[in-house]
Amino acid sequence: MNRYHFGIPDEEFIRGKVPITKEEIRTITLSKLRIDTNSVIVDIGAGTGSISVECALLAREGKVYAIEVAEEGIDLINANKKKFSVENLEVIQAKAPLGLEMIQSADRIIIGGSKGNLPQIMEWADKHLSEDGIIAANFIVLENLMTFTELLKNMNYDWQLINVTVARSRSIGGSTMMEGLNPIYIVSARRASRKS
Amino acid sequence: MNRYHFGIPDEEFIRGKVPITKEEIRTITLSKLRIDTNSVIVDIGAGTGSISVECALLAREGKVYAIEVAEEGIDLINANKKKFSVENLEVIQAKAPLGLEMIQSADRIIIGGSKGNLPQIMEWADKHLSEDGIIAANFIVLENLMTFTELLKNMNYDWQLINVTVARSRSIGGSTMMEGLNPIYIVSARRASRKS
Amino acid sequence: MNRYHFGIPDEEFIRGKVPITKEEIRTITLSKLRIDTNSVIVDIGAGTGSISVECALLAREGKVYAIEVAEEGIDLINANKKKFSVENLEVIQAKAPLGLEMIQSADRIIIGGSKGNLPQIMEWADKHLSEDGIIAANFIVLENLMTFTELLKNMNYDWQLINVTVARSRSIGGSTMMEGLNPIYIVSARRASRKS
Amino acid sequence: MNRYHFGIPDEEFIRGKVPITKEEIRTITLSKLRIDTNSVIVDIGAGTGSISVECALLAREGKVYAIEVAEEGIDLINANKKKFSVENLEVIQAKAPLGLEMIQSADRIIIGGSKGNLPQIMEWADKHLSEDGIIAANFIVLENLMTFTELLKNMNYDWQLINVTVARSRSIGGSTMMEGLNPIYIVSARRASRKS
Repeated sequence: MNRYHFGIPDEEFIRGKVPITKEEIRTITLSKLRIDTNSVIVDIGAGTGSISVECALLAREGKVYAIEVAEEGIDLINANKKKFSVENLEVIQAKAPLGLEMIQSADRIIIGGSKGNLPQIMEWADKHLSEDGIIAANFIVLENLMTFTELLKNMNYDWQLINVTVARSRSIGGSTMMEGLNPIYIVSARRASRKS
Repeated sequence: MNRYHFGIPDEEFIRGKVPITKEEIRTITLSKLRIDTNSVIVDIGAGTGSISVECALLAREGKVYAIEVAEEGIDLINANKKKFSVENLEVIQAKAPLGLEMIQSADRIIIGGSKGNLPQIMEWADKHLSEDGIIAANFIVLENLMTFTELLKNMNYDWQLINVTVARSRSIGGSTMMEGLNPIYIVSARRASRKS
Repeated sequence: MNRYHFGIPDEEFIRGKVPITKEEIRTITLSKLRIDTNSVIVDIGAGTGSISVECALLAREGKVYAIEVAEEGIDLINANKKKFSVENLEVIQAKAPLGLEMIQSADRIIIGGSKGNLPQIMEWADKHLSEDGIIAANFIVLENLMTFTELLKNMNYDWQLINVTVARSRSIGGSTMMEGLNPIYIVSARRASRKS
Repeated sequence: MNRYHFGIPDEEFIRGKVPITKEEIRTITLSKLRIDTNSVIVDIGAGTGSISVECALLAREGKVYAIEVAEEGIDLINANKKKFSVENLEVIQAKAPLGLEMIQSADRIIIGGSKGNLPQIMEWADKHLSEDGIIAANFIVLENLMTFTELLKNMNYDWQLINVTVARSRSIGGSTMMEGLNPIYIVSARRASRKS
């Protein structure tokens, strides 16, 4: 039996029919977050909880809040929380920024889904992100990506966008073929340093 | 000051003129390794030691051996070991599989460079990889990639190849352009389960 | 000596220091235009004229207008017009939509550069595009891409966006490495069919 | 009704259940062939005949031979030949290099499929390719790609490999998502110039 610490394969997560962030995208998102062992992390639109669980394993002395509005998602997050024995993961059923009132401050904020609330979520994030805090967001919809980068420009953040395209091999009778996955956009942002 | 635990930006590593594995590739490689807190990890062709350092931070109760033949690389690995305060990282100057004699068993093996010794390295790996152990290798040269997959086929491993293409944004006067990086091949392998 | 008809290598074009649309992108753009032998084609932001020249070779009984504002570009287009002996190519120095007055109707419109005039160019295009006409545009700037797709949505066009990422091999001592080019966005659009 | 000259959409070809080379790959392959109006072209493993048909439209004073072994393919090629009214396309049912005896010389050779006969096909190609002739081949199987490049190395050809990754937009309720296609390898080769 494998005690996972980092790098959990997609198929190890309990997922139902909820789409899961693919491993390669999840791990790059985690990397961009520069997670510390005691980070307080808010995962908005947590879906199956796959990112929340890996965050909780990395920030083992910290705390992770998984925010998700869908009933099915909440059940999956709780199931994965149990499967991977992460005590420092708190599950909140709400449509962000609702449900975030109890969180005083966040070191890292992940936006996996926004349900059309990107401006309101960023307003909350801007108020509650700790100094040197980091926001990371994944996008598959171009219009949402651009809404987010426009918000970042107006709110004075240093940010980077990467586009990640992964192809995975499939072996058929000793022949190796590459199958393309959908390209994903990952934005990571940090409050721009104030000039004094 | 930032105490890094996971997700170190490329520019934080001391690198000299040695090419460094880009962050996105490094982090996916780490993910494919499924590192446990007590893993014993051998990093062959460690270069600047960027992967070795992140391994040592993840396998905090384990041990990492960084194998590198070039003098300049050895200096950089030692400098990065010091910078990131990783005590569980041992640096060995050798052209693998030379220099591996002292290592009884490895849970994870990384091949970042092979200096033409892929068959010999895999012979060593196959003898010393622990049960449920994992090998991960990065390739930019197609011929080396195919040499490696042919070795894996002949040695009865389950393996997966992924091709990762990353583009990073560059902002010019408020306009966002995407700049392509070179695509990288990442192979991860596990000994095929024996049928009894 | 090679008489080119279709598929001109980048290095065959006279280019000076003006960036040229890479062959693979040029050829896909031409394909999306569904060029007929007698098409009337307007190439806005023609740059070096590489796309205009290939259009003129394909639409051999048609006509191509190359619109470019920069002096250096005009010289290059004229030089390439001469080099590839395309009589049916007319060069117009102007910042579109200025300079388009003499063109009554266009079967195909290419937007390679817009100098911030995308709305005005599309206003002209919408008035002068023939029935079943096609517009194709290349983008490297995300903000411009999104401006264009928003215009298309509001003007009732059927459109498709593709993102093309090309890596080219480089051979070093018998080893084959892949070098990534910048990803490019290509949009092709056709007036949406009217429901009667 | 559209009279196609260049740039035929995938859905315009009659295809049955035979996989078709995607438009973007087809058009880049055509570009790499540097087709002249009078080129003699051999398309080996012609599949649905989509590349053969576009070749025949471009080389309108030349001749195209479509070689295909499968009965279903032969029917589709003939159907597409008829649909696009290309008289200069000859269909040969054979498993190459069988069936190529009647072809004295080829200016361009396309390898879309080889049924394991790459060495024999290249032996034929090397004997029958005209001076300044060009070979282009598409691969999805890595092992076949490497077999081909090794043959080219041993036969003294100048060649280039490109890897093309395309993502196409899908619009859902005004939102634009990108869907990844499988990456394809395209090799183009020309006999290396002899040093005298």
